[in-house]
Amino acid sequence: MSSKKYDFELEFKVRDYECDLQGVVNNSVYQNYLEHTRHEFMKNIGLNFSDLYERGIMAVVARIDLAYKQPLVSDDVFVSRLSVEHSGLKYIFYQDIYRLPDEKICLKGVVTTTTLINGRLATSDEIVGAIKEVVEKRE
Amino acid sequence: MSSKKYDFELEFKVRDYECDLQGVVNNSVYQNYLEHTRHEFMKNIGLNFSDLYERGIMAVVARIDLAYKQPLVSDDVFVSRLSVEHSGLKYIFYQDIYRLPDEKICLKGVVTTTTLINGRLATSDEIVGAIKEVVEKRE
Amino acid sequence: MSSKKYDFELEFKVRDYECDLQGVVNNSVYQNYLEHTRHEFMKNIGLNFSDLYERGIMAVVARIDLAYKQPLVSDDVFVSRLSVEHSGLKYIFYQDIYRLPDEKICLKGVVTTTTLINGRLATSDEIVGAIKEVVEKRE
Amino acid sequence: MSSKKYDFELEFKVRDYECDLQGVVNNSVYQNYLEHTRHEFMKNIGLNFSDLYERGIMAVVARIDLAYKQPLVSDDVFVSRLSVEHSGLKYIFYQDIYRLPDEKICLKGVVTTTTLINGRLATSDEIVGAIKEVVEKRE
Repeated sequence: MSSKKYDFELEFKVRDYECDLQGVVNNSVYQNYLEHTRHEFMKNIGLNFSDLYERGIMAVVARIDLAYKQPLVSDDVFVSRLSVEHSGLKYIFYQDIYRLPDEKICLKGVVTTTTLINGRLATSDEIVGAIKEVVEKRE
Repeated sequence: MSSKKYDFELEFKVRDYECDLQGVVNNSVYQNYLEHTRHEFMKNIGLNFSDLYERGIMAVVARIDLAYKQPLVSDDVFVSRLSVEHSGLKYIFYQDIYRLPDEKICLKGVVTTTTLINGRLATSDEIVGAIKEVVEKRE
Repeated sequence: MSSKKYDFELEFKVRDYECDLQGVVNNSVYQNYLEHTRHEFMKNIGLNFSDLYERGIMAVVARIDLAYKQPLVSDDVFVSRLSVEHSGLKYIFYQDIYRLPDEKICLKGVVTTTTLINGRLATSDEIVGAIKEVVEKRE
Repeated sequence: MSSKKYDFELEFKVRDYECDLQGVVNNSVYQNYLEHTRHEFMKNIGLNFSDLYERGIMAVVARIDLAYKQPLVSDDVFVSRLSVEHSGLKYIFYQDIYRLPDEKICLKGVVTTTTLINGRLATSDEIVGAIKEVVEKRE
């Protein structure tokens, strides 16, 4: 495993409907994996994506940069790991996917998110506070 | 083409990401095609699924019965046709998919929908009226 | 829980990307859940969907009949249960989805599948044998 | 419209099932749009993704970098435009999505692809030749 320190991880198993006609997980599906990992991470630190949205706080992705290293195939089990940084109006998630049990790196991603409050770019004290705690705990 | 009289049709082209590791359109994707056809049909008769939802009128699927006749594959063009009946609290959509240009039947479906108004089963005069007009025009 | 005897079950958690603009799991996604449950069941009895396909044995869905009882929403955990019958060229899967922990029924489905061997409708002794064992064990 | 010269464009309409619980097109779906645009572009210049795969030539995505500028919503019509460069073992696609009719930029993407021939990184003369023709025609 990478020496990088992650804040959260979630295990998945490839589902056959996620594979395309090349017999590998379709490229777009990795974004589903990454999103689900981020949302579960958020719940884990007391933030609920769906609740936030209903209260007018919209977490949105501004940029996504993905390097595909090794395709996942039918029956693969893998772990999706993330660490997070806060910088100004942005929350940057470093998200990597490793196949199990051999810990082969499959995907390296950087996902830059931001927050719209009632439609305007703004920081949410609630999110900033929760992420700050994570960052401090790590250091 | 079938002698059945349809109220609406929409042409599609298979997209490669819709195909699974068997090299055919995944079974679940046909529901996407059928839903998109119903929503476009609704817009065509003055009903907008998304607007209805925002006004507390939720069109929901109660039953779906699909017979898969012939798989669609990469590069196929096809037409999705529907006719609609109204019966009590239900709107029944007969939805068939034909491959083009040979008009080979690929899927026969019956989709039974109903309406929740502010969370309770109810008829929407707006929907009933619009569908009645379609049915009358056909006869 | 239903008194019906199931042969297999698999637990899931709703992922936010599976929800649509009505804030509920999109109707088509239930087919993904059902397919993944069938494929995991098959692996559990020694049959691998992807391997079968590579050896020219194509398990295909002929019919699907779904009754939507209760929508799943963000954060829901649920269990997908199935029992199977073999009849001639068909394998019939009774597949029901229950929300956890309250065991509220969400979806009742009947999925009729069949097998194409090298493109022709045929019984696979391998599949018939494995399913027969399941049925006998249940009785 | 941007002054950038594109080699290909394809028009789409948002389908409601592509929208998530925030009421906007889910981030992962843009990759579907981009993939479909690339594959249609390839067909347009005589290359078929599915056929190539069957002949052991696997076009794969190595990197994807997306900047989300403006979310697409239910009922939006948009155009997906691409230009392509060839550099060594890589084909780089510049892919941008504009909402119609106002030509508002929604997504800017760079998709770096490469080719595996019988499982090994290699250039395909067939692909190189077809793309060279496109680049020359543009200049």
